[in-house]
Amino acid sequence: MERHVALIVSYAGTAFAGFQRQPAVRTVQGCLEEALGHIAGEPVPVRGAGRTDTGVHAAGQVVDFRWAAGPDIPAKKWPLALARHLPPDLRVATAFEVPDSFHARHSAVAKRYRYLLWRAPGESPFWRPYTWHHTGRLNVEGMREAAAALVGRHDFRCFAGAGRPVSDATRTIFACAIWERGPLLGIDVEADGFLYRMVRAIAGTLLEIGRGALPGGVQPILAARQRQAAGPSLPGHGLCLLWVRYPSDCGVPPPEDPVWPPFLDVTATPQ
Amino acid sequence: MERHVALIVSYAGTAFAGFQRQPAVRTVQGCLEEALGHIAGEPVPVRGAGRTDTGVHAAGQVVDFRWAAGPDIPAKKWPLALARHLPPDLRVATAFEVPDSFHARHSAVAKRYRYLLWRAPGESPFWRPYTWHHTGRLNVEGMREAAAALVGRHDFRCFAGAGRPVSDATRTIFACAIWERGPLLGIDVEADGFLYRMVRAIAGTLLEIGRGALPGGVQPILAARQRQAAGPSLPGHGLCLLWVRYPSDCGVPPPEDPVWPPFLDVTATPQ
Repeated sequence: MERHVALIVSYAGTAFAGFQRQPAVRTVQGCLEEALGHIAGEPVPVRGAGRTDTGVHAAGQVVDFRWAAGPDIPAKKWPLALARHLPPDLRVATAFEVPDSFHARHSAVAKRYRYLLWRAPGESPFWRPYTWHHTGRLNVEGMREAAAALVGRHDFRCFAGAGRPVSDATRTIFACAIWERGPLLGIDVEADGFLYRMVRAIAGTLLEIGRGALPGGVQPILAARQRQAAGPSLPGHGLCLLWVRYPSDCGVPPPEDPVWPPFLDVTATPQ
Repeated sequence: MERHVALIVSYAGTAFAGFQRQPAVRTVQGCLEEALGHIAGEPVPVRGAGRTDTGVHAAGQVVDFRWAAGPDIPAKKWPLALARHLPPDLRVATAFEVPDSFHARHSAVAKRYRYLLWRAPGESPFWRPYTWHHTGRLNVEGMREAAAALVGRHDFRCFAGAGRPVSDATRTIFACAIWERGPLLGIDVEADGFLYRMVRAIAGTLLEIGRGALPGGVQPILAARQRQAAGPSLPGHGLCLLWVRYPSDCGVPPPEDPVWPPFLDVTATPQ
């Protein structure tokens, strides 16, 4: 019996050349397909919800694949079955059986990304893989206002990176929020879909606005519909795909915000 | 004028082949000497307080060097002066001028290390570089009792890794504490000095005791004075050198416990 399986996967993007399979480099898709191929004894292609770039992390990436060859593995056994064939920086958290029509990317109705800035005076060797270091004053209230102005249905061509032209750049941003915690500043963006490198361009634009550049705010940038009107893209390593949402009949439960960055506070001196 | 400088340095050990300079591999000492050499225009040897192994991290390693050639750099300028010549996983936090007699290793009067276990059911791609994954029940009270029994002046030959034989294996452990926080279990060991791989052997022995092996506790292990009597060494990547302490006339202020692991809790869903 052919099964159709969706996996929720997490990875530290640092040592991957992005999600998408490419010859001769280490990618998330490549590692997953290799692991499945080991179990199946034949190639098993997987599809991802978001093609994260080099250095970009994922707490809740979703992939799907069809399983016909190999042992009959119930959904809940997949995380353990794959664990021994995957490197330690790539884990399967959960798995679900999904309808025949499910497609990790096309079935998604929303995704949420988080971009992290690290604002301490010195760079940290430990935070560096997960954040973009920025020192200097930021007008965080101004950034919040600009973020709020992005919410809604707009042509977001101004935030589309070169390399993957699209005919229709209209997307709906459901939420765009700025939060602070200690030296961290987070930019959370949730939308029904994202253009290529859109979150990194939004983060770079909000950072410029926080620095006092782009005093006109985001309205003229959106209106210009040109990439040059917006701020620069920030590097991939500050970005994380938090989760992907699907319609309720897909068999993938609604996601919750994961802990990201995935670390606890252990300041208390133990006794 | 020749200056004598001590640096407090932090590094993520993941991508280093340990502290000690070796040909053709990336080491902490090698990177520091290369950076200083760039500024001085001539080789500048550095000495470290602890020769951490491959994968071992440091929040407060101490190194010292003599500075005669190159520009005259006041102590507080060293972190920034070196930042541009160091890789992002190695940072200088602070610098101090120290007396002529100072020696990063020989002048030290105490060091504190922390070993971290990660006890969640699944391995985490994000915690993995900083912890050793252990599932299964542990008798934490039994581990605490064993840890307490290690405190004091003892011959610790039973915890000395092969490779660096010593004539005198007597050291004083000032504190050995077990703490828990969520899925983390920490083992903190503070002593006047450590034998080669001593903390990793202590952590492995306490873990065995927690699992119910070695029911006799640590007394017979210490008495045996043989490495085989103790538990196995745990891998380097769970270990961190927290700090090094010097006499007050050395010019290096007394250390405080750093935040380790160096991450904050960002569970709250931002608004």
